[in-house]
Amino acid sequence: MPRILRINTRERSWRFEEPGKYAGLGGRSLTSRLVQDEVPADTHALSAENRIVAAIGLLSGTGAANSGRISIGAKSPLTGGIKESNSGGSFCQKLARLDILALVLEDKPEPNAPLVNIVLTKDGVRFDEAGDMAGKGTYACMDAVSERYGKKACAMLIGPAGESLLTGASIQFSDPWGRPARAAGRGGLGAVMGSKRVKAIVIDDEGGTRFGYADEARFKAASKRWAEILRAHPVTGQGLPGFGTAILVNIINEAGAFPTQNFRTGRCEHAPKISGEVMAEYMEKRGGKVKEGCHAGCIIQCSQNYVDPAGEYITSGFEYETVWAFGGNSLIADIDDIARLDRMCDDLGVDTIEIGNTVAIAMDAGIIPWGDGKAALKLLARIADPSDALGRIIGSGVGFAAQAFGIDRVPTVKNQSMPAYDPRAAKGVGVTYATTTMGADHTAGYAICQNMLKVGGDVNPLGKEGQVETSKALQVATATVDSLGLCLFVAFAVLDTPDAVQCICDMVSARHGIDFTPNDFIAIGTDVLKVEQKFNADAGFTPEDDQLPAFMKREPLPPHNVVWDFSVEELQQAKV
Amino acid sequence: MPRILRINTRERSWRFEEPGKYAGLGGRSLTSRLVQDEVPADTHALSAENRIVAAIGLLSGTGAANSGRISIGAKSPLTGGIKESNSGGSFCQKLARLDILALVLEDKPEPNAPLVNIVLTKDGVRFDEAGDMAGKGTYACMDAVSERYGKKACAMLIGPAGESLLTGASIQFSDPWGRPARAAGRGGLGAVMGSKRVKAIVIDDEGGTRFGYADEARFKAASKRWAEILRAHPVTGQGLPGFGTAILVNIINEAGAFPTQNFRTGRCEHAPKISGEVMAEYMEKRGGKVKEGCHAGCIIQCSQNYVDPAGEYITSGFEYETVWAFGGNSLIADIDDIARLDRMCDDLGVDTIEIGNTVAIAMDAGIIPWGDGKAALKLLARIADPSDALGRIIGSGVGFAAQAFGIDRVPTVKNQSMPAYDPRAAKGVGVTYATTTMGADHTAGYAICQNMLKVGGDVNPLGKEGQVETSKALQVATATVDSLGLCLFVAFAVLDTPDAVQCICDMVSARHGIDFTPNDFIAIGTDVLKVEQKFNADAGFTPEDDQLPAFMKREPLPPHNVVWDFSVEELQQAKV
Repeated sequence: MPRILRINTRERSWRFEEPGKYAGLGGRSLTSRLVQDEVPADTHALSAENRIVAAIGLLSGTGAANSGRISIGAKSPLTGGIKESNSGGSFCQKLARLDILALVLEDKPEPNAPLVNIVLTKDGVRFDEAGDMAGKGTYACMDAVSERYGKKACAMLIGPAGESLLTGASIQFSDPWGRPARAAGRGGLGAVMGSKRVKAIVIDDEGGTRFGYADEARFKAASKRWAEILRAHPVTGQGLPGFGTAILVNIINEAGAFPTQNFRTGRCEHAPKISGEVMAEYMEKRGGKVKEGCHAGCIIQCSQNYVDPAGEYITSGFEYETVWAFGGNSLIADIDDIARLDRMCDDLGVDTIEIGNTVAIAMDAGIIPWGDGKAALKLLARIADPSDALGRIIGSGVGFAAQAFGIDRVPTVKNQSMPAYDPRAAKGVGVTYATTTMGADHTAGYAICQNMLKVGGDVNPLGKEGQVETSKALQVATATVDSLGLCLFVAFAVLDTPDAVQCICDMVSARHGIDFTPNDFIAIGTDVLKVEQKFNADAGFTPEDDQLPAFMKREPLPPHNVVWDFSVEELQQAKV
Repeated sequence: MPRILRINTRERSWRFEEPGKYAGLGGRSLTSRLVQDEVPADTHALSAENRIVAAIGLLSGTGAANSGRISIGAKSPLTGGIKESNSGGSFCQKLARLDILALVLEDKPEPNAPLVNIVLTKDGVRFDEAGDMAGKGTYACMDAVSERYGKKACAMLIGPAGESLLTGASIQFSDPWGRPARAAGRGGLGAVMGSKRVKAIVIDDEGGTRFGYADEARFKAASKRWAEILRAHPVTGQGLPGFGTAILVNIINEAGAFPTQNFRTGRCEHAPKISGEVMAEYMEKRGGKVKEGCHAGCIIQCSQNYVDPAGEYITSGFEYETVWAFGGNSLIADIDDIARLDRMCDDLGVDTIEIGNTVAIAMDAGIIPWGDGKAALKLLARIADPSDALGRIIGSGVGFAAQAFGIDRVPTVKNQSMPAYDPRAAKGVGVTYATTTMGADHTAGYAICQNMLKVGGDVNPLGKEGQVETSKALQVATATVDSLGLCLFVAFAVLDTPDAVQCICDMVSARHGIDFTPNDFIAIGTDVLKVEQKFNADAGFTPEDDQLPAFMKREPLPPHNVVWDFSVEELQQAKV
């Protein structure tokens, strides 16, 4: 049975323990339960009392397609509430091969203690000095990891932003090619890891073993059906592998919900120039790769190997959200500059959504010109220097930079930046932004499915009807998917395929030797949200915090000229 | 009957109106009622929807001693809640001579509209271009005001910090000598004024008239008794005029509640070197003035003219709080450097408490060395440059700078910095910090009286008993005093003098021709707190926000080794 590994970062000690009260939990259900139980809700997120927990999901370490997502949980230094952020890459599956259910970083050393790499092998845990990895970008760090620990070693690591304790800092993860291009981006978790003076957690899974199955035949049958389901759906089978998530650029822009120039309008004139279609065209012409999975067993393959005109690698994991933040919200029209910005964010270890939008704030404040990709690259580069005060401001996110520059147009909820859908013209995901425990977050309840894509239903994005119910149901289902280790994109297929939930239940039952039913599928997600809501209430969040900024209630968004018109009371109906 | 003057800062228009629903209110009772009624609680504090209101008190413009305090109200960009900050200086009395009860700045122009001076005379209102006053410190601005509007003109003005919209920005007021050394310091109100592109409000009260009295004989008799009361009490009659508020340095340090090195201990070794006694000695030796009132009719005279070794003026309004923030919390041992820091804060237009403590945060982050007064002066000077990112960070206050530098020891409540009394060893004022609507604020309910000074009672500062009741009663009484235009220091005498409240009631009754009783005295303050609590609830504040930071619950404060041990539920008993 996979165990929990507890690591004390002050004493550099470690021990394994049985799951105990965390038995039967995985992914987000484990991380949120542990944070709620073990982290005082009133603590400062960079204090010794905060914990980072990385947990594999209930289907991780199996042959199920798209089951390799790792969940990271802690109290967020950005929102002040509970956070779960999940990521692709190899880390989850290699943790599973070492028979580890979850890894918990506890305590913290003195602020100037040397940075360490924590190395996990089949023989146990050791602490290496990070040495000259300190202060380096994640790409250089992965080169060092390769040299020191072998090409097959994978890592969970922070860049200079996390070392500097900036609230926009991500935790990056290496992909199957050893590139640090996957991210647990949202909520500043990189700063928590930095506060514990951990540069990287490295896994060498040599000699590790695969999980068994309680009922292998049943698992294989369900898993086969599962792969068919994912391949058959147009989004997971064609759209995402063909064009990546940036397929959404034209869709959301046409819908008039593409936030442009710091959320002033819902449509950007040059959006077609920075779309997934254009990116695919360039990659084909230049010798990039249109289609890559971010972990072994991913069959959706929405990632890519994006290259410059000379065919040299620029970046991977190049998402719609990133293209939008720099291209739409910050008005940069050059997709190659945006690709370089994406790579730079991965290298610095910052969330592309948060920091992309912070660039828009900086443009609103006149720090750099609107749409100037080269100036944006120079500005972001400053984040790497802990003594550069402007770099620290930019690396701390939208709410922070807006306060620094006296900007009163601040598109955040619970101090987390809104993502790539203006809630006034996409009201379902707006309900999610307002009410999820995570702060303004699209993945937590991706009602774009029903509002824009006609997946899982068809709900008018511009009206109020049906949005609260849609968001609530999605938030529950998403919390379950996040607990299984499954990539969220499976939801497109699951929402439209009648036997998909039962198929998932069959896989869970067959893996663990339990009777996991569709009722359990709903119950897991509901319990997760209750635990998270309690933590946030104890941390001081109130129904008034489950609301969008005032300017969105007052200012109609072109082209549809819609305002945000949900009251606090109406929104509370989306809570469990 | 004094009128309300409404000024639209976008259109540069103005009109007078009768008090209407604000009749019978003054000072904080007027500002808080107006903010609650006219400012949407969810608005961004720098948006066009916020308003700044300056209101004279119910006893202002009379011959009553110490009745010249002006109250300034708005939604605070620092706390996100309601704010009232009051100040000395000549502004209140000159506003009264123009028969103005309150002045309201509404709306705002474009961010790059030219800065204006709004000039009030007996003939009305006009808008002058601020011209080359833009970007200047308040001392140079007062020279310009003198030149342009005459030596008798007084002003309410912002420095570069307010122009830069920094959340640590104060509003400064000129004293009877034309120096901008008085402040409405707390809560970032200077940024609100800056967002409306107003550099100064200037009053030339030439041709103005004095208020009449409904019953002049009764007023004079009560006013005579009032002056006797203030002169007779040892604090108001001897301690404060003799040594200023810095008389508290040795007292609070002896008591072990003098927060030292970012709230790590309660006692500072060099405190005696920066005490009020030492300051008085220097002023006497060097030819300064130990005793000055901040407005005509002030008989407590706690201010001073502090000079350098050559006898040259450095600063005035040199308070205990400022000496502590730079001298105790930031460990600067040179009282003359601290005086220069006080002057610099007035000149920049920043709150000495907030920014003094931000210097301690900067020292904790290793930006400058602990105790280095010269380095602190250099650091603060950067606030004047809007393009200096480090200056912007420092000028934005404790919570902001702590986040910028990843500091997890953050002594704030509702994002406002704690003042000069560690709540673990001064639990009465700790209850005030937690529960007042103002954020961590000592004046809102100054339980130091009962805890340390044995004024108005004797309550052990280290225990829980009696603190909630004491703080609550003081918060109510203070809200009343703040509505009368009286200087808060009258409270020392009032708490110990049985006929003082009746004397105040006699003055109010005789001025206004009403029957104002001790029950009304209590009712005014209670109503103010209810209005403020409602605004804050609508703005999203919750009982969990009425609490001190976690580290104060965990970490015992030397020398008494006390922790903060009030629960959220216990603290709610201090609310009305």
